[in-house]
Amino acid sequence: MLGSTHGTLTTTPRSARVLACGEQLSGVGVVHGQAPGGVRSGTGGADADGTADAVALDVSGRPLHAAVPDLDRLFRPESVAVVGASDAEGRPNTGITRQLLSWSERVGARLHPVHPTRETVFGLPCVPSVADLPEPVDLAVLLVADPLPVVGQLADTKTRFAVAFASGFAETGEDGAAAQAKLAEVTARSGLRLLGPNTNLNAFERFRDDLEGPAIALITQSGHQGRPVFALQELGIRLSHWAPTGNEADLETADFISYFASRPEVGAIAAYVEGLKDGRAFLLAADRAAREGVPVVAVKVGRTETGARTAASHTGKLTGADATVDAAMRQYGVIRVNGLDELQDTSALLARARPPQADGVAVYAISGGTGAHFSDLATAEGLTLPTLSEEKQAELHQWIPDYLSVANPIDNGGHPVGDWRGRKIIDAILADPEVGVLICPITGPFPPMSDKLAQDLVDAAEATGKLVCVVWGSPVGTEDAYRKTLLGSSRVATFRTFANCVGAVRAYLGHHRFTRDYRSPFAEAPRTPSPSFRKGEALLRPDQQLSEHSAKQLLRAYGIRVPREKLVTSAAGAVRAAAQVGYPVVMKASAPQLAHKSDYGLVKVGLTSASQVRESYRELAEIARAEGIELDGVLVCQMVDPGVEMVVGIAQDDLFGPTVTVGLGGVLVEVLRDSAVRVPPFGEDQTRDMLAELRGSALLDGVRGRPPADVDALVEVVLRVQRMALELSGNGPGQLAELDINPLVVLPRGQGAVALDALAVCG
Amino acid sequence: MLGSTHGTLTTTPRSARVLACGEQLSGVGVVHGQAPGGVRSGTGGADADGTADAVALDVSGRPLHAAVPDLDRLFRPESVAVVGASDAEGRPNTGITRQLLSWSERVGARLHPVHPTRETVFGLPCVPSVADLPEPVDLAVLLVADPLPVVGQLADTKTRFAVAFASGFAETGEDGAAAQAKLAEVTARSGLRLLGPNTNLNAFERFRDDLEGPAIALITQSGHQGRPVFALQELGIRLSHWAPTGNEADLETADFISYFASRPEVGAIAAYVEGLKDGRAFLLAADRAAREGVPVVAVKVGRTETGARTAASHTGKLTGADATVDAAMRQYGVIRVNGLDELQDTSALLARARPPQADGVAVYAISGGTGAHFSDLATAEGLTLPTLSEEKQAELHQWIPDYLSVANPIDNGGHPVGDWRGRKIIDAILADPEVGVLICPITGPFPPMSDKLAQDLVDAAEATGKLVCVVWGSPVGTEDAYRKTLLGSSRVATFRTFANCVGAVRAYLGHHRFTRDYRSPFAEAPRTPSPSFRKGEALLRPDQQLSEHSAKQLLRAYGIRVPREKLVTSAAGAVRAAAQVGYPVVMKASAPQLAHKSDYGLVKVGLTSASQVRESYRELAEIARAEGIELDGVLVCQMVDPGVEMVVGIAQDDLFGPTVTVGLGGVLVEVLRDSAVRVPPFGEDQTRDMLAELRGSALLDGVRGRPPADVDALVEVVLRVQRMALELSGNGPGQLAELDINPLVVLPRGQGAVALDALAVCG
Repeated sequence: MLGSTHGTLTTTPRSARVLACGEQLSGVGVVHGQAPGGVRSGTGGADADGTADAVALDVSGRPLHAAVPDLDRLFRPESVAVVGASDAEGRPNTGITRQLLSWSERVGARLHPVHPTRETVFGLPCVPSVADLPEPVDLAVLLVADPLPVVGQLADTKTRFAVAFASGFAETGEDGAAAQAKLAEVTARSGLRLLGPNTNLNAFERFRDDLEGPAIALITQSGHQGRPVFALQELGIRLSHWAPTGNEADLETADFISYFASRPEVGAIAAYVEGLKDGRAFLLAADRAAREGVPVVAVKVGRTETGARTAASHTGKLTGADATVDAAMRQYGVIRVNGLDELQDTSALLARARPPQADGVAVYAISGGTGAHFSDLATAEGLTLPTLSEEKQAELHQWIPDYLSVANPIDNGGHPVGDWRGRKIIDAILADPEVGVLICPITGPFPPMSDKLAQDLVDAAEATGKLVCVVWGSPVGTEDAYRKTLLGSSRVATFRTFANCVGAVRAYLGHHRFTRDYRSPFAEAPRTPSPSFRKGEALLRPDQQLSEHSAKQLLRAYGIRVPREKLVTSAAGAVRAAAQVGYPVVMKASAPQLAHKSDYGLVKVGLTSASQVRESYRELAEIARAEGIELDGVLVCQMVDPGVEMVVGIAQDDLFGPTVTVGLGGVLVEVLRDSAVRVPPFGEDQTRDMLAELRGSALLDGVRGRPPADVDALVEVVLRVQRMALELSGNGPGQLAELDINPLVVLPRGQGAVALDALAVCG
Repeated sequence: MLGSTHGTLTTTPRSARVLACGEQLSGVGVVHGQAPGGVRSGTGGADADGTADAVALDVSGRPLHAAVPDLDRLFRPESVAVVGASDAEGRPNTGITRQLLSWSERVGARLHPVHPTRETVFGLPCVPSVADLPEPVDLAVLLVADPLPVVGQLADTKTRFAVAFASGFAETGEDGAAAQAKLAEVTARSGLRLLGPNTNLNAFERFRDDLEGPAIALITQSGHQGRPVFALQELGIRLSHWAPTGNEADLETADFISYFASRPEVGAIAAYVEGLKDGRAFLLAADRAAREGVPVVAVKVGRTETGARTAASHTGKLTGADATVDAAMRQYGVIRVNGLDELQDTSALLARARPPQADGVAVYAISGGTGAHFSDLATAEGLTLPTLSEEKQAELHQWIPDYLSVANPIDNGGHPVGDWRGRKIIDAILADPEVGVLICPITGPFPPMSDKLAQDLVDAAEATGKLVCVVWGSPVGTEDAYRKTLLGSSRVATFRTFANCVGAVRAYLGHHRFTRDYRSPFAEAPRTPSPSFRKGEALLRPDQQLSEHSAKQLLRAYGIRVPREKLVTSAAGAVRAAAQVGYPVVMKASAPQLAHKSDYGLVKVGLTSASQVRESYRELAEIARAEGIELDGVLVCQMVDPGVEMVVGIAQDDLFGPTVTVGLGGVLVEVLRDSAVRVPPFGEDQTRDMLAELRGSALLDGVRGRPPADVDALVEVVLRVQRMALELSGNGPGQLAELDINPLVVLPRGQGAVALDALAVCG
């Protein structure tokens, strides 16, 4: 099997194949023990039994588990020091001190003002420095312009957390970044965990404690941007935490995701992200949330160059290539939204709704127009509106006139809402086993109907385990039916626009589908190098683009099929090689750093005789001489049958490191940039999802009477390229920085896939 | 020039070429006078001077001008009859009568109740039938179950308008449609204009009359769906009219668009459309609005099959193919939106904002995060955020700390908002000549800052001609700064979400760009048949698919280049033809109704000798015999050089009639359905826009070192195909129902375009 020209592993069961292809390469068994030089760090042989181990690493040297910090005492400290406390009228620190004082009283924390000269602050005894604190504090809030000296002092005490307000760090440029690096260094070598710098008091705002049920936990990299989510409490939606991460010198978004995912009161995590400190940490945290079944809803700035640049200058973090961010989030089920309104609506729904009993959506309206319009938008966004059974329709027609359609959408024409029939209809819809979600868009308030309808919906929602959503379409929003009846119930999800309702319901159904089937790719990520690794590593050449022949040897080392070919250095050698390879042959000039060979006329195809081969050798040599290209020889290659041309490659992302891309070849990739990307580690299912994402994916099914392509073989190649990415690729010197198989010819089903050409660049 | 093999008209000035190509075909001059049989109606020779003429028709027999009904007395009647009036407790008509009474009193109309048995209604004298009315009324409101008899009676009086509430017409199926047709028939032969049936009282609601400035005029096909736009009045946005069109037996959406576009108080028209009665009427009305510079913002249901089906069952109208609806709306500058919230926000902005002085958008925020996030979404949607000049940035840095970026987005860091600097900054931004729009997203309310900021923005907006937009991001929306300050000003456009603000500003800038350059395609539509018409018409065969050879003759008749080819019926004839056509040749079996020739092996390419031609003829004849295909001969065709393969075609749309499509050929059209559509008449600019819409349009520019394609020749072919669509195409018997040029090979620039194959189907 291994080393076969097909490169497919048809006998391996699917579950075991995920990411495991490396172990099966070349048939030489699994390498254990010390990691070879090219692999970045020690291998995780220590926890080969698969148990959670905070220091377990994959073969690329990256961690396999999120570090979950215990942040209980950051959010609920028993003792708080305020460094730079003030009660002088007009000082900005005075307002902050006052807020912390009031907050401490409410949560029962002891507060200790720290100020070099004051005796008391707001009547509390004040100490001159943190060294003089009467007890080790859980939390020190640093209101001083330069937090570094204080952080140094705190590191020597048993202080658990510090919050640094000061700005002027990485967001301002190189000097600031250096100062921030020092802060990070001091905290890293102590037990102290730092929030900020460039942050604020959001974590210690006045949260409503009269709201019940699962809560939203909020993470933001900008205080102002979190404000509307916080304001949801005024609409009755519970918020448990707010982590304003600022510049993330130490604690980062990922830490808060991991922590919140483990808190029982948290139903959903809402995040506003401008950039990430560490892509891998974010993915590990998202993986943890996925395993815990806690949804993460995120705005991530950086759709455009302008946004990315502006975000970077705000908190000094990396934004990553947006398509890669998008793919990485989808890999781990993070729900990406664009607007803060969507962030609010989606996280509120996901926090509070129970898992769906069915995926079908029923749309119920008091107007046929509203039903038609909502259904149109809902189906356009991929929601499923099952046609109700004849029995169910007959049941509904007991209460709804026959001339109105109740197939779904269900149009009640208005009148039945006003009496006892209103509730009957809602209950009957909710009782349908195909219906998991009932959505009632109330476009305009018409109190005689809409007040009663709102109350019926709330009552029905309280009595069912299914999701009931209402869109209150009035732009006014001060109506009692909205403010009191609908927002007064935590069992009804209320929206203001059709679009946000549709988006949130889609995210809700998608989240539960995702977590139901979720298997962590980290659990199956390889920890030890494959047998291919040594062969592959030996082919890399620091700072060079490999010759086509070397690049193909690299592919062959990883079990990817390439055409039979020989590198020759004479016309006679070419003729001998052609006989071995078998006619017809292709001949290509070969040299490191040589790209765009066809543009120079350095490729000859369809050669069928020794004389053609001899003549072609001379021509290629001549062109190379004329162009000043120093050849290391000429490749004589087997002609490969036609198939679907794809590209598969490895590239480096600022945020996530090596990524794997697959796309349609030829014109499709050049003109339409029709490609899909994933961040390793990922499994076979994600690979198939990548192919499904391609706009031109139907080409693989066969068009114009062509046979379907060998998709299994293509999937296998992508997984093998991923293995190369994990073992050989990175930004470091001598590592594989870039790989581009173009084209990979995917032959008809059962016949495999062949890499016709490849470009490999080393760092 | 004419009849040249290139088919391009390079010497014709561009402005004259729009749609005029027909007159220049075949070099036989322009045909005037009586329209030949195949053209649907008399030609518009009568107003060849181009003046507006309500009965002018284009060459297809369709009108060239919107009929603009005078609807003043519908909306502001001096006398109203209420047929079916009631004051009996508990009757639905009682509430309606009461509302009409109160409305009549307010607007000063005389109200006459009509009821067969009552003496008085609400104290007013009641007459038994409309024949007994004391005066001819402007408006009769029909609350009776069957309006047909009353409409018949009214038609004999001088009543100007009737509104029919009853449902049960076209929305219920065939019987209802027949009843509706009778209603239409009765009104059509009288002076009476009818609103409805299946409508309501929305036109006679209580409009606020204390609001000033340009208003929104609203058209809806569902009362409930218009409610939130109506409710905008509660937020201070003026509404002048509401036309609830219902089933449109007579008056239709297009009539109201035309009428509203001519009313001075109307700043924008907002429409909720489920289906259209007459596609052409809608386009003519949109054209009129475009010429008047009045924006039309529309929700059009029918994005999906579900939506289209449900909408059709609601008001019994056609929804049309959605991509065609979309294209047709864009052709005439109609702004299509998805949600009612977008309909509100976009029409409110467009109604009230003065034309932009520049296209640049400045984003101003009190938080760097907010600025980054908003800018990201804005640039992703195509808004332009010019980088402010160094001088302007220096000016802003007088008031904003140096470490904050003011390049655009402008981050003030918060503090300057609180004092005199706040207003200075806003004025300085607005004074920048590159800035036409200032947008200030206030994500969360923070009264010490946001109240002052809101007031400064309002004050600055009152003092400038430029557009000032604010996003009030709080989900609560009861704050004074929002309700009183921002909504209290008609000079600030206030939004609740980033997305709606970005969408509305894009529509605003787009609308003014569109109307500035707008030239009505109807003004330039051909009114008389081209010289090609007779030749083309003679080739059509009722109920048949033409043979490839005939289809190509049809193309040739319209000046579209086809390969040299001969139809032969013997092997010897084929050899002679090949010699005339010139080697190498292609041979294709020819028969009517024959498609997918290659699948049967009925095409032979690259034949270079007489013997190959002879042999191929025999093979083709044999295959045809074996397959039971009766050939009318074999085509011997010139081989054409390679180029970019396109498809150009004509199809029939339910709503708009013949449409013209252009797409990329081969795999791109089959797999990606990469095509663009337009509804005739359209000009050269729209043709170029079609090409720009293609995802793979870069292929025409030349990729992989290929030369750029002859786009001018392609444009010319599309315009000539449009001329065929106008003159020959339709759903009628014997008309050209479908044309498909596939492929059209577009050769390198200067070398023209050649139709290699064509399919033509007649009705």
